Amino acid sequence: MQQPLYTRTDGLASLTSPTDIRKLGFEELASLATELREIIIQTVSRTGGHLAPSLGVVELTLALLKSFHADQDRFIWDVGHQAYAYKLLTGRLDRFHTLRQLGGISGFPRCDESPYDCFGVGHSSTSISAGLGMVVARDLNRLRHHVVSIIGDGSMTAGLAYEGLNQAGGLEKNFIVVLNDNEMSISKNVGALSSFLSKRFASRWVMRLKKETEAWINQIPKIGTELVGYLKRGEDSFKGFFTPGMLFEAFDFTYVGPINGHDIRELVSVFNRVKQLEGPILVHVLTKKGKGYEPAEKNPTHFHGVGCFEPETGKAKKFAACSLPSYTDIFGKTLCELAAKDDKIVAITAAMPEGTGLTHFARTFPDRFFDVGICEQHAVTFAAGLAAQGFKPVVAIYSTFLQRAYDQIVHDVCLQNLNVTLCLDRGGLVGEDGATHHGVFDFAYLRHIPNMSIMAPKDEAELATLLRTAIAHPGPAALRYPRGVGTGAVPDRNGVSIPLGQGELIKDGTDGCVIAVGSRVHPALEAIQELEAEHKCSFALYNLRFVKPLPQKDLVDLAGRFASFVLVEEGTLAGGMSSAVLECWTDHGVLNGQAIKRLGIPDVFVEHGAQKDLRRLVGIGKQGIRKACLAMTAG
Amino acid sequence: MQQPLYTRTDGLASLTSPTDIRKLGFEELASLATELREIIIQTVSRTGGHLAPSLGVVELTLALLKSFHADQDRFIWDVGHQAYAYKLLTGRLDRFHTLRQLGGISGFPRCDESPYDCFGVGHSSTSISAGLGMVVARDLNRLRHHVVSIIGDGSMTAGLAYEGLNQAGGLEKNFIVVLNDNEMSISKNVGALSSFLSKRFASRWVMRLKKETEAWINQIPKIGTELVGYLKRGEDSFKGFFTPGMLFEAFDFTYVGPINGHDIRELVSVFNRVKQLEGPILVHVLTKKGKGYEPAEKNPTHFHGVGCFEPETGKAKKFAACSLPSYTDIFGKTLCELAAKDDKIVAITAAMPEGTGLTHFARTFPDRFFDVGICEQHAVTFAAGLAAQGFKPVVAIYSTFLQRAYDQIVHDVCLQNLNVTLCLDRGGLVGEDGATHHGVFDFAYLRHIPNMSIMAPKDEAELATLLRTAIAHPGPAALRYPRGVGTGAVPDRNGVSIPLGQGELIKDGTDGCVIAVGSRVHPALEAIQELEAEHKCSFALYNLRFVKPLPQKDLVDLAGRFASFVLVEEGTLAGGMSSAVLECWTDHGVLNGQAIKRLGIPDVFVEHGAQKDLRRLVGIGKQGIRKACLAMTAG
Repeated sequence: MQQPLYTRTDGLASLTSPTDIRKLGFEELASLATELREIIIQTVSRTGGHLAPSLGVVELTLALLKSFHADQDRFIWDVGHQAYAYKLLTGRLDRFHTLRQLGGISGFPRCDESPYDCFGVGHSSTSISAGLGMVVARDLNRLRHHVVSIIGDGSMTAGLAYEGLNQAGGLEKNFIVVLNDNEMSISKNVGALSSFLSKRFASRWVMRLKKETEAWINQIPKIGTELVGYLKRGEDSFKGFFTPGMLFEAFDFTYVGPINGHDIRELVSVFNRVKQLEGPILVHVLTKKGKGYEPAEKNPTHFHGVGCFEPETGKAKKFAACSLPSYTDIFGKTLCELAAKDDKIVAITAAMPEGTGLTHFARTFPDRFFDVGICEQHAVTFAAGLAAQGFKPVVAIYSTFLQRAYDQIVHDVCLQNLNVTLCLDRGGLVGEDGATHHGVFDFAYLRHIPNMSIMAPKDEAELATLLRTAIAHPGPAALRYPRGVGTGAVPDRNGVSIPLGQGELIKDGTDGCVIAVGSRVHPALEAIQELEAEHKCSFALYNLRFVKPLPQKDLVDLAGRFASFVLVEEGTLAGGMSSAVLECWTDHGVLNGQAIKRLGIPDVFVEHGAQKDLRRLVGIGKQGIRKACLAMTAG
Repeated sequence: MQQPLYTRTDGLASLTSPTDIRKLGFEELASLATELREIIIQTVSRTGGHLAPSLGVVELTLALLKSFHADQDRFIWDVGHQAYAYKLLTGRLDRFHTLRQLGGISGFPRCDESPYDCFGVGHSSTSISAGLGMVVARDLNRLRHHVVSIIGDGSMTAGLAYEGLNQAGGLEKNFIVVLNDNEMSISKNVGALSSFLSKRFASRWVMRLKKETEAWINQIPKIGTELVGYLKRGEDSFKGFFTPGMLFEAFDFTYVGPINGHDIRELVSVFNRVKQLEGPILVHVLTKKGKGYEPAEKNPTHFHGVGCFEPETGKAKKFAACSLPSYTDIFGKTLCELAAKDDKIVAITAAMPEGTGLTHFARTFPDRFFDVGICEQHAVTFAAGLAAQGFKPVVAIYSTFLQRAYDQIVHDVCLQNLNVTLCLDRGGLVGEDGATHHGVFDFAYLRHIPNMSIMAPKDEAELATLLRTAIAHPGPAALRYPRGVGTGAVPDRNGVSIPLGQGELIKDGTDGCVIAVGSRVHPALEAIQELEAEHKCSFALYNLRFVKPLPQKDLVDLAGRFASFVLVEEGTLAGGMSSAVLECWTDHGVLNGQAIKRLGIPDVFVEHGAQKDLRRLVGIGKQGIRKACLAMTAG
């Protein structure tokens, strides 16, 4: 972990505690903002990370720490990918160069990293609910500190945020919610709420009030005509009345704003007033994503979460491996090919058209593409509605975020046995985003749902083939693939689909058998081939492909042929693929003392770090598989 | 299934198709309403069911079928527990007496039951999302029928509904949402939204507009004073402007209402106008839960979902078994005892204070009780916020509904290893509510989450003890217990807590061992004792108690001692308790050819029927366990 050479850190380094910020003047704060931006840009250019969100809230962060008391008050950063400035200001300057690296600090707030992080985050829209819990805790404890949740307008589209607003409004306790409105989630925001927060909404209401008031005033003969004329001129006065605040006032919040989120003086003045108010308060702050770094201001979606880049230009640093198309690319490309031949295929994403590889689909089939916002629950039930009418929706969501829609998968898709294809990108260990983002639970949270099929391709070519299988299958199917690139296997555009539950024996052997799935098939093959080349042992390799339905006949045959098994997956050992295989063998009564070693994600949350390092650490890399095979034959 | 003797069915019986309703006059419709109510009351008095919701929408259902075209248009009933009149009017009169009984019709709409049910429901708040999917499907197919989602104000509090509204507003397609507003979910509604839908909200806005307008008008010297006086008198004119519609108009819906939901003529007139409008429309209908049946009007919460009762009086029919307190009662009572001694214990429910047994807690500790509405996601994250500040929240939610909060359990509770106790009532097969309500997935959806502990008591006394264990444990814990009564075991108020992961050998044996958990322990004991009394075989019985952490040492010992095992649970065979035991045995290398029979919920959705019958059918009743033991010893 090479320490970047920051141009200046004197302002930051002079802070002994975040409460020192309370004593700084506005000029010193402005200078600190410049320092923070520089450190963030320089660091993220080397580590990768969430650049644009963090640059957007530098002034907001400083204003919060100037106005509130970091040792007493609680700040809950929604999602937390915007908290880099906060990290730097709360004692993490010296560790900041380790951002997102193995053993380094996390890209998200974490309670175990700093006492100033009061709630761990990573998924969207939890901050109002968690903040309200802290508000209630404070009042039960008869304490008087402030609780401040900072939530983006993108996060505000998720149902969880609305549920939190509803209870917060009902409880009427002192609670400050800062709405960080940059008109974006990762991509441009969608849905009615986004237009509501914009001026378009206010204008519409002014029109309506004018119309209704005119009709009413005309009933007053003496003054009516004159007043109507005045009303026409008075339009601007009404504009202040019909603000985006109406929605929040509907939830019994006091609305304050909108405020320029890059004007520290104005922010501090407002926060100081807001601290005196009673009840739930929403402060509407307007910020620019990527603020202060031209490449990020121009392309905030690209710089939302970014890999290494040249800080001077913003140009991405290319690595050798990156020349291959990613699993995501292959998914997007294949789906376009299939959709061109079948107009019942529609694509749905939850605020991630770029991340899930659907931008080309969106351009090619605009009528059949739906970005529903950060609304995974709705995405799945909406897909179920489409499937109930004969369409073939393909829902592309990262594995970790699809967790939000577990009930909808059970209740709306699987119970009705509908043809919904769930494409779980970022299945397995995702790397630097860490514990909140690893997609390691999916086999386990999907496999017990009746009617569900679960598949995981060994490479990009198989991804394309299994996507065909999944869409052609009339029931629910989940297709799970990893972040990044695979072997570079080129899909066969005319390839047939693989029947459900058909695995493949990739290689035979004499000493035992490795059963692998998804991303683990190729490392297993390499490990086995190495061992064979070294004349150490000869293992067979079976590519399971289907976690459900299992290739039962093959599995039973293998159990009869071999005395040693290594089962390897990039998912939890509890309830995952190997667990399914054990159930199958038990129910078929074919377990009779075979040695079985299970490799997978152990029963702990895996931290952040390079994907390859993490795989090695949990023992599912080539070396881990090799070691397991050797241990079997040694005994 | 005894057919009830309905007083009158002539009106209903004369309908050959639901479209016949379009031809009926308002007097005939009124008469049909009376008939429907009578049939519903008489049937539910014998079968139990959702009485009050269904009685509340009799006129609404008739008006929909009069105004729309059942053969073309789509009706999506949110939750679906209000759809009894709809079932009767869409060809299910002759099967209605089989309501909720094994082999009979479901208590909820189901696509496989009737072509007039276009979407299966059971959980709350799916109707807008599913309806929107059907709207998009219609438009892609270039068809022109109407899609109507009927959603209660209770369901409107869930985040999923909001996510649906947001996209529906953004898409601007023709879509009719009927808000059935009875000011209740199961209990009285909570949160800011409920006050918003009431007059209180409108009044507040009128006050604010008056204040602001006065200030502005006073700037017009000539007419100001006079107008201010007029404004004071004109308050009522403004009331029509500030309607609950504002919230929905904020989502780009056209708002129509509120309308008397028991006036068929008015409803039909409005629906006929609404059919002509473009874009998304919200029709706000006011209904009375339990309408037309005095006992239900007086106590709509009790009659929301009710057991058998005397139709004349509404009095519940008592059965012998019901004299025992239920698991729910014991939970509520024990929690009150613990909370009296520990002021850090707070209780949270999601719109189910009665169903989860928390009414007494709510009365005794009003400051520490939180009903968050139908917001399971928020309930869990709110609890995490409280726990992060040192409280010990106990979240009581039915197993099936907690599915909604899976991601929050992973991400907000377990990743942060917080002391949140999840109490999963209605774990296992719930009986007549059927497939949408069985709580059979919980072991499987919780067990793979790191830091989670999962316990299931064998009886009521153990429930009380394990509740102590769960709350005392500093990390996350899930306590799962069945619907109804157990053995009647009386909790020991001074009982100590059981250490995590400690099972118990209830009985030793020579021929094999039954490992059971939760509700299956006592039936297993009975089966074994019978077999022993009959000198057929002698099985040991191990009460696992903890699905996680497993009593690993005991399990390994048992694997060494016995050659035959029956594993039995009231949860899914895939990924559930027996799956966990297999993992443990495999990882300890103690499987060497033992015969293992797994009993549990097979990989299908289990239908509705009496709890006892369903348990028998899936083979986890006493007979099923007996049979499995016998089969082991026969070979």
